[in-house]
Amino acid sequence: MVTGTEGPVGPVAYPASDAAAPTDQVSLRRHNLALVLRQVRDSGSRSRARLATATGLNKATVSSLVAELVDRGLLRDGGTERRGVGRPGQAVELDGTAVCGVGAEVNVDYLAAVALDLGGRVVSEQKIAMDITGLGADAVLDRLVRLVAEVLDDVAAAGGIPVGITVAVPGLVEASEGRVSLAPNLGWREVPVVQSVRERLGGWSLPLLLDNEANLAAIAELASSRASGRRDLLVLFGATGVGGGIVANGQVLRGGRGFAGEVGHITVDPGGMRCGCGRIGCWETVVGLSALMSQVADPDDPVRDPAMDLAERMTELRRRAELHDGRTLRALQRLGSWLGTGAAMLVNVLNPEVLVLGGYFAELGPWLTDAVEQELAPRVVAAGTGGCRVELSTLGFTAAARGGAEVALDRVVSDPTLADRAGVGGAPQPIGGVS
Amino acid sequence: MVTGTEGPVGPVAYPASDAAAPTDQVSLRRHNLALVLRQVRDSGSRSRARLATATGLNKATVSSLVAELVDRGLLRDGGTERRGVGRPGQAVELDGTAVCGVGAEVNVDYLAAVALDLGGRVVSEQKIAMDITGLGADAVLDRLVRLVAEVLDDVAAAGGIPVGITVAVPGLVEASEGRVSLAPNLGWREVPVVQSVRERLGGWSLPLLLDNEANLAAIAELASSRASGRRDLLVLFGATGVGGGIVANGQVLRGGRGFAGEVGHITVDPGGMRCGCGRIGCWETVVGLSALMSQVADPDDPVRDPAMDLAERMTELRRRAELHDGRTLRALQRLGSWLGTGAAMLVNVLNPEVLVLGGYFAELGPWLTDAVEQELAPRVVAAGTGGCRVELSTLGFTAAARGGAEVALDRVVSDPTLADRAGVGGAPQPIGGVS
Repeated sequence: MVTGTEGPVGPVAYPASDAAAPTDQVSLRRHNLALVLRQVRDSGSRSRARLATATGLNKATVSSLVAELVDRGLLRDGGTERRGVGRPGQAVELDGTAVCGVGAEVNVDYLAAVALDLGGRVVSEQKIAMDITGLGADAVLDRLVRLVAEVLDDVAAAGGIPVGITVAVPGLVEASEGRVSLAPNLGWREVPVVQSVRERLGGWSLPLLLDNEANLAAIAELASSRASGRRDLLVLFGATGVGGGIVANGQVLRGGRGFAGEVGHITVDPGGMRCGCGRIGCWETVVGLSALMSQVADPDDPVRDPAMDLAERMTELRRRAELHDGRTLRALQRLGSWLGTGAAMLVNVLNPEVLVLGGYFAELGPWLTDAVEQELAPRVVAAGTGGCRVELSTLGFTAAARGGAEVALDRVVSDPTLADRAGVGGAPQPIGGVS
Repeated sequence: MVTGTEGPVGPVAYPASDAAAPTDQVSLRRHNLALVLRQVRDSGSRSRARLATATGLNKATVSSLVAELVDRGLLRDGGTERRGVGRPGQAVELDGTAVCGVGAEVNVDYLAAVALDLGGRVVSEQKIAMDITGLGADAVLDRLVRLVAEVLDDVAAAGGIPVGITVAVPGLVEASEGRVSLAPNLGWREVPVVQSVRERLGGWSLPLLLDNEANLAAIAELASSRASGRRDLLVLFGATGVGGGIVANGQVLRGGRGFAGEVGHITVDPGGMRCGCGRIGCWETVVGLSALMSQVADPDDPVRDPAMDLAERMTELRRRAELHDGRTLRALQRLGSWLGTGAAMLVNVLNPEVLVLGGYFAELGPWLTDAVEQELAPRVVAAGTGGCRVELSTLGFTAAARGGAEVALDRVVSDPTLADRAGVGGAPQPIGGVS
């Protein structure tokens, strides 16, 4: 007969198991190394005994795994930990400084590059204001790679080892091809970003990935709220366009071809304005940066100058709002309402735990949140907006670059055997001729 | 140094590994039993050698796993398999008939119950037309449990063992509580369905789960296209309301509290009609069954009689459409356009590989698909609708019940140690007093 006939009433997970999980001893070991490393990274310094409890592994196995992770330069022995009545145990902690991931972002108004170490600390952060309209992809990628090279120099100066670079672009990305298929606000179509960056990087031979800006911003938000255990996030990233990054059950939702989260051109105002894309009433026509700018200031107002740093322009708008400038406040109220109108659809579809407002929405967040919530409450079918809270990102305009750095690091976290002690802690070496 | 510096350009999976994977020998064995069983179920009869290749396990391990699965009554030896020049191997095949999952569905116009065996064959299918408007939840669940009891009798008569029951309801479900929190079209609020069904089932003590109708319909579609390897589906299930079932990367998307897929009340027509929910211009006001009915026929037309079987009413509409009845064709054209208008938003957000039209949309599909595609093409940002194809469900109105049966079966597929040979193949026994 079938045992356990009186099962618990629980959420239905389907399918219940993941066929990609380890099937042999080698991959089981690799999986368990990752499990222990992730546990220490996410939950902090702890003894081998507590690691055994947390992971379900036995203590001898944990000791062996920790020894290997120390050997690979990813963990190190920390202070003693006294809990309960037993003998104090020696804690292990993250040796977070050796391994660094790099993320780089192209956006309409700026370029950015960030290096994070395994402990999540910012080793280097570079951002330059740049109106890329009219510049070709070649010129933009030239400048981006110079920025990345500066970040790599900072990593080297800090004694870190770069483990990979992820490039973020606002648009439709064919990640497996390393190509931007369409980025309307950049004016890019079929740009082979990974190949172009690789050629420009010269001696540096690092794993290179490409992803959509909002996906990477969502990854950065997920990483920054790791301790909270959140698994369902919706990130709305405001810049020239509006990017949607979706995390569902702890994973970025990409869809069949990686084009998910394309929220800027859903129709929210069928009788409204024509969008740059040619459609009528796209969400971007009411919540994109230029929609706000046309409401908030006259054309000759310096706050509308795209050559000016976007963060500074936002500072100026905040200043005006704080002075209760009527036009500014009306424009922000309108922006918040439209943001909430569109977000309500997404909350009904996705039921996120948190709606994170990022990019310029976060900069102006204190004047937007109420209006957003006032639209969500009546429009979301589930009571109490299905538990969804509205939060403001604290990651600023480099969120996508940070997410890119996290993705680069995740490769080592998921397979710690990629980190080899011989080189960890040493200076990074340009490696030529590997490709 | 970090090895493998020149990584492949591939889709970014983040995070790359699943912390829920096995960590010890016992769970590794269970995982590998599930892996082999799933392989045979999804890919068909094959030799131990081919199973070893497909799973990455060594042949001795596969032989041992197969022996245990045969012992548990889940696999059996099949015919010989001759491939290439080697010795012919004996194939193992699914012993699909012993274990059965049961799904049951409450909808506005009908109740349904289905039993599927492990091989996906329908062991029993019951559906009754029933206008439940005005009936209380108690009366409806009384009738539903009688239907389930008939299905359980059929399973017993076929020599099967029921392994669980999943109940499908169109509305917001708190799965972990076994409770419907809100089902507007049923008029249900805070109905403890699992507890009520358990009390009514009497001697039968089986694992009971509750889920949203569209989620379960999506699971049924996923299961029916298992061989295709599809992992990103959007199912739009048309009945009195419109249900959305989302499968992302092979998993049902549920959101933070399980309320995801609530698509019926997203706003598609801000200047439109008031919905039964009180909001203006909900998608349901233009694609729900009553929207179609008010367009397609006068109030006294029998096709609008809710007491008549929904499938029969659809047959009548198809007949009229085939006769080129102008009013019918115009109403279907309008329905298809609105269906495409709303679906385009969801395709932009989710980038599914397939948009499956289910429920009454499938019944009328031949007259809807063109209109849907005509709205998708210009409204979806990614070229070629991001690769999304529109398909019609072949599962009829019992799709959700089938999905429920799949969920019940999945428990055993994911943990074959739940199937104990002693009982498999024997008659099912009512088990009292276990709860």
